[in-house]
Amino acid sequence: MMIDAGHQWATATAPATVSNVAVGFDILGFSLGQPVDRVTVRRSADKGVRLVDTGGVGDLPGEVEENTATAGLVEMVADLKLDFGLEVSVEKGVPMRSGLGGSAASAVAGIVAASAVLDRPLSLPQRFHYALLGEQRVCGRRRADNIAPAMLGGLTLIRSIDPLDVVRLPVPHQLEAVVVEPEVQVEVRKARALLSDTVDREDFVVQTANLAGFVAGCFEHDRELIGRSLKDLIFEPQRAHLIPGFAQVKEAALAQGALGSSIAGAGPSVFALHDSHVDGQELCQTMIEAFREAGVEARGYTSPINSTGAYIVERGPRV
Amino acid sequence: MMIDAGHQWATATAPATVSNVAVGFDILGFSLGQPVDRVTVRRSADKGVRLVDTGGVGDLPGEVEENTATAGLVEMVADLKLDFGLEVSVEKGVPMRSGLGGSAASAVAGIVAASAVLDRPLSLPQRFHYALLGEQRVCGRRRADNIAPAMLGGLTLIRSIDPLDVVRLPVPHQLEAVVVEPEVQVEVRKARALLSDTVDREDFVVQTANLAGFVAGCFEHDRELIGRSLKDLIFEPQRAHLIPGFAQVKEAALAQGALGSSIAGAGPSVFALHDSHVDGQELCQTMIEAFREAGVEARGYTSPINSTGAYIVERGPRV
Repeated sequence: MMIDAGHQWATATAPATVSNVAVGFDILGFSLGQPVDRVTVRRSADKGVRLVDTGGVGDLPGEVEENTATAGLVEMVADLKLDFGLEVSVEKGVPMRSGLGGSAASAVAGIVAASAVLDRPLSLPQRFHYALLGEQRVCGRRRADNIAPAMLGGLTLIRSIDPLDVVRLPVPHQLEAVVVEPEVQVEVRKARALLSDTVDREDFVVQTANLAGFVAGCFEHDRELIGRSLKDLIFEPQRAHLIPGFAQVKEAALAQGALGSSIAGAGPSVFALHDSHVDGQELCQTMIEAFREAGVEARGYTSPINSTGAYIVERGPRV
Repeated sequence: MMIDAGHQWATATAPATVSNVAVGFDILGFSLGQPVDRVTVRRSADKGVRLVDTGGVGDLPGEVEENTATAGLVEMVADLKLDFGLEVSVEKGVPMRSGLGGSAASAVAGIVAASAVLDRPLSLPQRFHYALLGEQRVCGRRRADNIAPAMLGGLTLIRSIDPLDVVRLPVPHQLEAVVVEPEVQVEVRKARALLSDTVDREDFVVQTANLAGFVAGCFEHDRELIGRSLKDLIFEPQRAHLIPGFAQVKEAALAQGALGSSIAGAGPSVFALHDSHVDGQELCQTMIEAFREAGVEARGYTSPINSTGAYIVERGPRV
């Protein structure tokens, strides 16, 4: 077996992701084909981790402990007692504070690239461990609902974080996603602070029924069941007001035949799922237009939700 | 196509059921092979519904509007404007107020038997409609988490009651249930009144993760995932004190290798799921013994959870 490690440098990519997915608050997430972050990690003689390029994105943290691409690597380097250092460059494709898992994408791409320059590659649990640490620095809490789909691709269920228990869910054929990102920013911590600490028991029953219906619909490739189930009656109503035009965008998506639509992560991006009866590009334009009518400029992405997770796109010679 | 209706009399059976199933409060239920209720419905010249035999169970309501076997039939007879009457006899096998869906079993057996004596049989949605009405009279609320598995058999998800949206979930091979019924009674309404009206948001996340894990485990026939997921951290702790010895019975079941154990419905019965690594009879004895050590006599049942739902066991000649 070839061990894919020990390279002088490696560049990894990890995609944007949509967490929560209407019915899976903090436990479901899926990956998008685009946009992606690319992180290059290079061995260096000087020990420690250095961030040599943050990709020209103005407000990205330059301190290695504060940037999600490197915060996990700092821990890894200490744990492994490496006798060499790591130079890290980030090409930021996933917008930050958009609800599209920007910090997870950097954290995952960073650890996947770093694994390829080590003498022995990290195990998957190790990669999760350090990516989670990196995300934790920025989000202030351990969460895997963007990390897991960014790492593995597709639709993932995080059954447990400690110990990590991630389940890949099957995705029905031709199920695709449209994500539209408005030019407004929602602070994740603020969006979470707004949430009620409790859930009404009757709402709990309806929401869990929809969650179970969604999971069953995925396994049975039953797009109608997925559509009937894709409704968030608990968290979406508490956050929708943070996103100008949200109601109109969602309504426009459903009117055009989307199976469901809700907030991507903590927002402000809005996603819709659809099958082949709906043209993704047209749906995307409709949602952008609905934002525009609400006075907000937006840009959109279309993607299958069964896309690839993180992988090495390029690497240098072996050490 | 033979229409299975128009018989002079028919006897139907419907099984005991376990609702909630640890992670599916109000939305999941599975059927047992035993015990069962048997209801016989006979055409009569006199119009209306008469309860001619309640099976000798002392405290079963004799009024047709108050007995779940007949309450739905009263509505049906009125809706269909039948020019004949129905005489109903109940053989009560499922104990009442045990948490094993006793009222649902009678309601379902009653409507399935009645359908066979009509000139045209009821559709499945009609049978659900009247069985739900029957159960509603006794429980005070519309609920289908015992009705659905009693009607269809196996493991069922009630995604919605209005409109009715029931999903059969696949059951892994060799997954079996043990149910132990202690000689204490829990009033369903009281058990519900005890519950908090709200659910802590952090508990919500863990419980929904386990629900999704359980459903995924069923589809993937992954008994370990089912076992890791079968934990109720919300409702079981609020009800456990109603059942003397519950903690010891559950602990004994898990110690003997059960995948999971929790309260059946609102209690007081306790169920455990296990696979072929565990002997169901031995597990049953262990759980009965644990109840006995807590000072409570109990009896038990073992059953596959993929058992048949309601069906006609015997019928008279056509009219």
